[in-house]
Amino acid sequence: MADDENPINFGIMGCAEIARKVSRAIHLAPNSILRAIASRSIEKAKRFAIKNSLPDDVKIYGSYDELLDDPCVDAVYMPLPTSLHLQWAVLAAQKKKHILLEKPTALDVDQLDQILEACESNGVQFMDGTMWYHHPRTAKMKALLSDSQIFGQLRFIHSSSSFAPSPEFFEKDIRVKMNLDGLGALGDAGWYCIAAILWAMDYHLPTTVTALPAIARNSAGVILSCSASLNWDKHETIATFYCSFLSHESMDLAISGSNGSLHINDFIIPYQENSGPFSVTSGAKFVDLHIGWNVKPEIVQVATELPQEALMVQEFARLVKGIKISGSNPDGKWPGISRMTQLVIDAVKKSIDLGFISVSL
Amino acid sequence: MADDENPINFGIMGCAEIARKVSRAIHLAPNSILRAIASRSIEKAKRFAIKNSLPDDVKIYGSYDELLDDPCVDAVYMPLPTSLHLQWAVLAAQKKKHILLEKPTALDVDQLDQILEACESNGVQFMDGTMWYHHPRTAKMKALLSDSQIFGQLRFIHSSSSFAPSPEFFEKDIRVKMNLDGLGALGDAGWYCIAAILWAMDYHLPTTVTALPAIARNSAGVILSCSASLNWDKHETIATFYCSFLSHESMDLAISGSNGSLHINDFIIPYQENSGPFSVTSGAKFVDLHIGWNVKPEIVQVATELPQEALMVQEFARLVKGIKISGSNPDGKWPGISRMTQLVIDAVKKSIDLGFISVSL
Repeated sequence: MADDENPINFGIMGCAEIARKVSRAIHLAPNSILRAIASRSIEKAKRFAIKNSLPDDVKIYGSYDELLDDPCVDAVYMPLPTSLHLQWAVLAAQKKKHILLEKPTALDVDQLDQILEACESNGVQFMDGTMWYHHPRTAKMKALLSDSQIFGQLRFIHSSSSFAPSPEFFEKDIRVKMNLDGLGALGDAGWYCIAAILWAMDYHLPTTVTALPAIARNSAGVILSCSASLNWDKHETIATFYCSFLSHESMDLAISGSNGSLHINDFIIPYQENSGPFSVTSGAKFVDLHIGWNVKPEIVQVATELPQEALMVQEFARLVKGIKISGSNPDGKWPGISRMTQLVIDAVKKSIDLGFISVSL
Repeated sequence: MADDENPINFGIMGCAEIARKVSRAIHLAPNSILRAIASRSIEKAKRFAIKNSLPDDVKIYGSYDELLDDPCVDAVYMPLPTSLHLQWAVLAAQKKKHILLEKPTALDVDQLDQILEACESNGVQFMDGTMWYHHPRTAKMKALLSDSQIFGQLRFIHSSSSFAPSPEFFEKDIRVKMNLDGLGALGDAGWYCIAAILWAMDYHLPTTVTALPAIARNSAGVILSCSASLNWDKHETIATFYCSFLSHESMDLAISGSNGSLHINDFIIPYQENSGPFSVTSGAKFVDLHIGWNVKPEIVQVATELPQEALMVQEFARLVKGIKISGSNPDGKWPGISRMTQLVIDAVKKSIDLGFISVSL
């Protein structure tokens, strides 16, 4: 639906399930158009094209190299297994393709730094595929959290991200394979919790990160469930999170300030596509005799014309266009957010590996 | 409003602010009647009687001893500072008074054990003043949590209890005085979180308790804010909680099972007296393309004819009546719940004191 005369031309590298959602998002974003898809198997790519009713002029490649060599592709969306990110994202950057990279961005921050360095030296834009940042609800929540009269000083954050997949997932999904997505639930579900906590904290790095002494792994050692606490000495703030493949669908973010609190229970994927709720309470006191509250939480519904993933694609394409058309430099905000999230993931993993010690950052 | 021909006769020992609420609850409970109040100062007791419009036949004592020596008092409600509980609760038991004791029940479990031993050897009923147990909403939530089809296996619990009092509180309130309520926010707000977590876990004791490395204290060393994690090795369950005098009003309980989740944000004091909400989600999956949920949380409103504190008094008086009229033995369930809560409080405190180590139970 590109109504832009010069939309950014996308290629999709890897026909994962999540690519279906992003393929549609590229279609919905007004400044983007899907030009090509690639899988290691041409048959898989063809099936993807049919299943998603891609237009006939979308090119279908049976290898990633062919996609990266296509001069009409400006940018790639890359939903490959995490262990392949380093190789293919660096190559994509070298081929001057802007990169929208699925999260977790890498197996560790050293790998991510190599990717970011390749992007920087090749002048291409980097962004990770975290969609909820781009929902207008997120900006609305941030405005409230930043209002010291409404919210006061931030004290405590709790986030959870979990889902209970089918038994097939535990046998076959890349996210439970040590050689594909070695970070397991921490890298997948935990990415969202950590990103949300850092977002709430205006991207101040925590002083220490401490994994909590309860963790579930599969027989290969991949994390299926874990939790951790983060704390910020200067701010007297603490955060906890829980991420799991063993719990019912949850996407909770609860934030307490000195004068207000905010709750959202679908922050990663809104219950409905066109609107998302959150609740906010400010200045609550108990009524006389403590038999009730003087205010109840206010439910705020934030509508969006485009789904958050299309807004993500639109924002990414806007930055790419600035580079392509106006000669702007790549934006540093999004890579910086990705790097800090990955840094905290690393610290949680280190804490787990060293027996739940506190890791300083 | 005792419509019972032989109501249980209550005395209130200590005219704290919370006693106003419980005085009204004794009035509302159909099997209870307030016969006497006592303060160390007769003037304070008189002011309390006037402020709360107590009937003229309520006796007013200027010492606790007089109240305990009054033969027409069956049971005492005791909202004294925690450091006085041991002395006065033991004496009350020796005087054959049944005891409704404000939480935290004692400074540590050794003290509580002395109180419970005195109750047992004197054949009197013990119950702590945690009100939310007695709201019909609590039973309704427990029924849902216990339904394996709806909820599945319990995986994760998070609770928070906080309020941001006036500056005066930090100067004068007993809860920030080391010699009166040395457990600070942990004993006051934290009691609720720990009690809620144990309630959700059907009173299985956690394997380990670990305080999180972020804590605020006042100049006297009293805890103003802290958090901890609890875990149950056998059940693969983990819980976290946050309690604070520095954060906006919160009373959150979020429980995740393998097939459902439950959220409540006013579990300690319902927003309104006659009805309380919670939300439950079961069997949620993402719709095709992961652009929404197949079910949204269901909001359950549970009405109550009597406020939860009156139901607490009613339940306590029912047990006292069983002992007084029918010669029953004191009930062991409520003292057992108090003791387990106090035991976990002790473990959190120990973990804090020893530098946030994991404490085995």
